[in-house]
Amino acid sequence: MTAQGFLLLLELVGVFAFALDGALVAMRSTHLDLFGVVTLGIVTAVGGGIARDVLLGELPPATFRTWYYLATATAGALAAFWGQRLLVRVYRPILVFDTIGLSLFSVTGAQLAVDAGAGAGQAILLGGLTGVGGGTLRDVLVRKVPSILTGGLYAVPALLGACVAVAGPLLGVESGVAAFAGGVVCAGLRTGGVLRGWQAPRAPRPAPGELDG
Amino acid sequence: MTAQGFLLLLELVGVFAFALDGALVAMRSTHLDLFGVVTLGIVTAVGGGIARDVLLGELPPATFRTWYYLATATAGALAAFWGQRLLVRVYRPILVFDTIGLSLFSVTGAQLAVDAGAGAGQAILLGGLTGVGGGTLRDVLVRKVPSILTGGLYAVPALLGACVAVAGPLLGVESGVAAFAGGVVCAGLRTGGVLRGWQAPRAPRPAPGELDG
Amino acid sequence: MTAQGFLLLLELVGVFAFALDGALVAMRSTHLDLFGVVTLGIVTAVGGGIARDVLLGELPPATFRTWYYLATATAGALAAFWGQRLLVRVYRPILVFDTIGLSLFSVTGAQLAVDAGAGAGQAILLGGLTGVGGGTLRDVLVRKVPSILTGGLYAVPALLGACVAVAGPLLGVESGVAAFAGGVVCAGLRTGGVLRGWQAPRAPRPAPGELDG
Repeated sequence: MTAQGFLLLLELVGVFAFALDGALVAMRSTHLDLFGVVTLGIVTAVGGGIARDVLLGELPPATFRTWYYLATATAGALAAFWGQRLLVRVYRPILVFDTIGLSLFSVTGAQLAVDAGAGAGQAILLGGLTGVGGGTLRDVLVRKVPSILTGGLYAVPALLGACVAVAGPLLGVESGVAAFAGGVVCAGLRTGGVLRGWQAPRAPRPAPGELDG
Repeated sequence: MTAQGFLLLLELVGVFAFALDGALVAMRSTHLDLFGVVTLGIVTAVGGGIARDVLLGELPPATFRTWYYLATATAGALAAFWGQRLLVRVYRPILVFDTIGLSLFSVTGAQLAVDAGAGAGQAILLGGLTGVGGGTLRDVLVRKVPSILTGGLYAVPALLGACVAVAGPLLGVESGVAAFAGGVVCAGLRTGGVLRGWQAPRAPRPAPGELDG
Repeated sequence: MTAQGFLLLLELVGVFAFALDGALVAMRSTHLDLFGVVTLGIVTAVGGGIARDVLLGELPPATFRTWYYLATATAGALAAFWGQRLLVRVYRPILVFDTIGLSLFSVTGAQLAVDAGAGAGQAILLGGLTGVGGGTLRDVLVRKVPSILTGGLYAVPALLGACVAVAGPLLGVESGVAAFAGGVVCAGLRTGGVLRGWQAPRAPRPAPGELDG
């Protein structure tokens, strides 16, 4: 399998995981019909990659150039819709699938940005955006406060994972190895953040009326 | 009138209908001033087409290349603002104008995507996005749950209408006829969905805590 | 200093002001951690400019081409996070920083659009979008009704300021002078709108059920 084929495979696994996750969150948040669940699964799975491609000027986005992404996302959302009872047996399914998607998308998004000619800093940001973009869009549509803003680490693991995936090849590490290491860093930090309650420092709440505007 | 001129005319009728619809929904949802109503009318009317053009890489979007679209959208929103009392006499005005805009935008959006070189599958998706995009953006801004997620069929009629408009010419049907047929399919399904309460299968609600994440 | 260097400087001052403003609003709206505050500060500061560059087809957006913007936005958000107690001594800090950002972005956004080849009407709209886009995106993420929709003038000062900045050079006025005049117009109208309660005409509220849809 070529390096590019492997990157595509990783992306599709990420798409499937995020579509499952998006559909599960959607079913928890609002009482939706089949099409609503599929729509939110697809939005979660392809939203981040589309945002990355728009900002890179790589248009039409990869998601629209082949049928792989949309078919995989639809399959993931339908699996969640019909397999909900089975998925419950997975340990905390939303956390598991979300972490898989976040890790895969952050590192593949960053490497795709490098391939498209972006500088290292931009590639890291675009990798992070690929990871968190779809879920943020879904949260806005179901009127949840987006995960990037709430407790537990979410954007930081994505950015650090992307950083490892981008820095590796610059330091002579083979890009597949760097991607794997980046994914492990992201998944580890994210899981640790949720399970152990790692928190970033919080803003002191202003007294009422203190910051009128 | 050339085929292209006819497509533009249909688009402008859709813009007017969506601006009316957007402004009426806006006035119902929050107590807005004149500029808020016009802003939401314009967002509803041009949001879907802008999203389509961004994803096609046709930049700047058609909406910004001529003054027709914005002038028509502003006129539609002002008509809603000042003509509210008269519009009430129309039978369920929001449903009527929304259905007109949805049908026209889905078929014209799909045909514009084909003209811009998109494949059939992509054109159908982009047609559907043209139809539902502006209203979804408006709903996010006024903090309503978007129509694409709630009961009654919304995205499905748009996608099926776009499908007819794209498939027709591939099967040798004249494109104006295919567009008309697509519009009728979309409007019929949408109206039936609302009036007869056609529903897609619903997701079983998970028991509390079942899908913790 | 060249005209272009001066434009960049103005933009960075606007970025800093908007990041401060965005972070302050974020800390008032929800109880966020450090990363949430920085994320919202950056979104507020660079969201409008990114939307402008996407619509102009100037990709990747200026924000991603150099590190200046993101570094300045991060500095502004951190200043708000740690300097909250000091900022309270400023008179109505959110209003002050928001007005500075709005005025600077509307005029620089409009002039950048002209430089990128946009017509006068488009440049005015894109200037307004540069001014209001980031704050609107932040409001959607923290689930506030966006300022462009609520009482007091917000989008109108931005559009009028952009109008002055675009019209000036067409009438032979030096572009720096036109930008300054546009900024004063925008800041004056915005401040007057808030302090004196200037209001646009409001939509009459429809009777319940009158516009069913």
